[in-house]
Amino acid sequence: MPANTPVGGTLVNRVVADAAKLRAEAEKLPAITLPAAEVWDLKLLAVGGYSPLGGFVNEHDYASIIARGKLSDGTPWTVPITLGVQDASKLAAGKRAALKDEKGNLLGAITVQQLYARRFEDEAKGVFKTLDEAHPGVARIKSAGQTLVAGEVDVLPEALPSNEQGLPFKPAEVRAEIDRRGWKSVVAFQTRNPIHRAHEYLLRTALETADGLLIHPLVGETKSDDIPADVRTQCYVALIDKYFPKDRVLLAALPAPMRYAGPKEAIHHALIRRNYGATHFIVGRDHAGVGNYYGTYDAQQIFETYAAGELGIANLNFEHSFWCKGVGGYATSKTSPFGKEHHLTISGTRLRELLAAGEYPPAEIVRPELAEILMAYYRGK
Amino acid sequence: MPANTPVGGTLVNRVVADAAKLRAEAEKLPAITLPAAEVWDLKLLAVGGYSPLGGFVNEHDYASIIARGKLSDGTPWTVPITLGVQDASKLAAGKRAALKDEKGNLLGAITVQQLYARRFEDEAKGVFKTLDEAHPGVARIKSAGQTLVAGEVDVLPEALPSNEQGLPFKPAEVRAEIDRRGWKSVVAFQTRNPIHRAHEYLLRTALETADGLLIHPLVGETKSDDIPADVRTQCYVALIDKYFPKDRVLLAALPAPMRYAGPKEAIHHALIRRNYGATHFIVGRDHAGVGNYYGTYDAQQIFETYAAGELGIANLNFEHSFWCKGVGGYATSKTSPFGKEHHLTISGTRLRELLAAGEYPPAEIVRPELAEILMAYYRGK
Repeated sequence: MPANTPVGGTLVNRVVADAAKLRAEAEKLPAITLPAAEVWDLKLLAVGGYSPLGGFVNEHDYASIIARGKLSDGTPWTVPITLGVQDASKLAAGKRAALKDEKGNLLGAITVQQLYARRFEDEAKGVFKTLDEAHPGVARIKSAGQTLVAGEVDVLPEALPSNEQGLPFKPAEVRAEIDRRGWKSVVAFQTRNPIHRAHEYLLRTALETADGLLIHPLVGETKSDDIPADVRTQCYVALIDKYFPKDRVLLAALPAPMRYAGPKEAIHHALIRRNYGATHFIVGRDHAGVGNYYGTYDAQQIFETYAAGELGIANLNFEHSFWCKGVGGYATSKTSPFGKEHHLTISGTRLRELLAAGEYPPAEIVRPELAEILMAYYRGK
Repeated sequence: MPANTPVGGTLVNRVVADAAKLRAEAEKLPAITLPAAEVWDLKLLAVGGYSPLGGFVNEHDYASIIARGKLSDGTPWTVPITLGVQDASKLAAGKRAALKDEKGNLLGAITVQQLYARRFEDEAKGVFKTLDEAHPGVARIKSAGQTLVAGEVDVLPEALPSNEQGLPFKPAEVRAEIDRRGWKSVVAFQTRNPIHRAHEYLLRTALETADGLLIHPLVGETKSDDIPADVRTQCYVALIDKYFPKDRVLLAALPAPMRYAGPKEAIHHALIRRNYGATHFIVGRDHAGVGNYYGTYDAQQIFETYAAGELGIANLNFEHSFWCKGVGGYATSKTSPFGKEHHLTISGTRLRELLAAGEYPPAEIVRPELAEILMAYYRGK
């Protein structure tokens, strides 16, 4: 059984075959320097994670994505993948430009299709639902270049994720493994945190009704107070190693930046997971939210604004879960009638305090194997 | 949001409005005596549980159901609802006949459309996959009348389930309640046993991904060693009352006989639940099986022989579940990597011994509230 079809039907690959040729060409090209988040976007464009996009979007798609959550051809897409520059004086439509990171490393090149002005207010309201520059996503597009460069990209193999944690990160790799395992239904889980038992419950619940589970942590740019990707990866590996059947779970990395765009990013995350071969996507409360910009269920309800089958991947909505002493197991407000006094819960602050002090939280909340990894991390901080 | 559409699009109602008229008419009609299982079929026909069927099937549908799991018009249907008689000498196509139970109570009438011969071997092989008369379903059609009477039925209100346990049993009642609650997705659970924690885990798991749960015990004819419906109903009520949120669970009765037809009955059970408004149906291992006539997963795999959307209700497949000491909660072989030595399990025989002796099984296996009901039952036996 094949993995789910990619968005648009074909998996994009923008990694160049002849790296030497691109390196030679780039020496003669004007260069664009990409901020960290755009570097992650470039990596994901290269491997087809943003299929059908093969580059940064043009004005027609940009306006369509913002206004109606679709590309101009009607394909669902909610977050414009843009490349903003401060100075476009050396760039021109039809010409090539080199793409570099902030350290000056060559990443690839772009064939400039179009230069156009960012519509800050439209984009902020359309994608982030706010103009508040305290929102990290709004702040980023405000401070980024306001001239947008559209065009297909060509990416050097060395610009791809270094993969030092040994996790697959290319959609083609993950899809091939899904095919090899013969999974017909695959639930993907987005995370940027260690998986404590509350999330483990959602994973186990979702896996009961699917053939396989794709644990797919985002390893690109996140908020500075998030736990680093390498520490989280140790946690994922330890959890799966001891607590899940290996033949039912895939662990892969998602080289993408967080945007904190709430509902729009929930659809975005789901579409990306379709490109990785998933058929279902877990959406919790306040998915990809930050602050109080979005309603608790906005990220679940937005899925209903698309026609049945239109997204090509189904959302699995979940409530927050807790160890319920009344039920004698994990449950949510949907499945437990017991009030808060029966729930075993702990605040994030208290959890960090315990771990930093080298104390084990209750095993019903954090597996001891994960607690030990996190204790070591907090000790080293 | 409306409940799911009935099979065939319209909910059948064959309960007569003018009972006095039917009673008067019946005095002049030849009578057919229905065995206990057929009485249950009549009740379910009357209230539309077998929609689109409004009576016992004719030869064209009978042959089509057996050969391809569909009515002659292509509507999915896997179990022929038949009325067999030993002596058809007073019956004729186009004429009416009275329907009575074995005590002589008048239940309703049938407009005889056709009389035809049961094809015992075709039916046994097509529905039960065996000719072995040790199979209770095969034994029943072997000993039943071999002349089949087709035709629409008219049923007296007093022939409907006595409803003494206070459970709704009509599809229209359940559908109205689903509508009132605004559930878009409803998972139905077929059972003919008390719900111990292994099944409770499946229910809670299924409910996490749906709006509501329909616990739908079969209260018609079952095997003589099954626990009686009234005792089971006490267990269902006690379980829901303490351990589930009332606004997420509906308890209703299914007045139907068990056929033990394994995969064919799994589809049958699902289609009936669609008539009750459900969108999803839980299918465990060896659903509706008996002895070793069916493969463990036959009842799950048969759903794949229908085209996507053809059944109008989706199957949710589950493995057996167990309290896993390794995981620290309920899990299945799909979600726990821990071997049997980590599972807390108890045989059915040992469980009955404990309950009969008035001893509580582990609370991880049977809730104490249910154990007490079952202890009282075994004490009284």
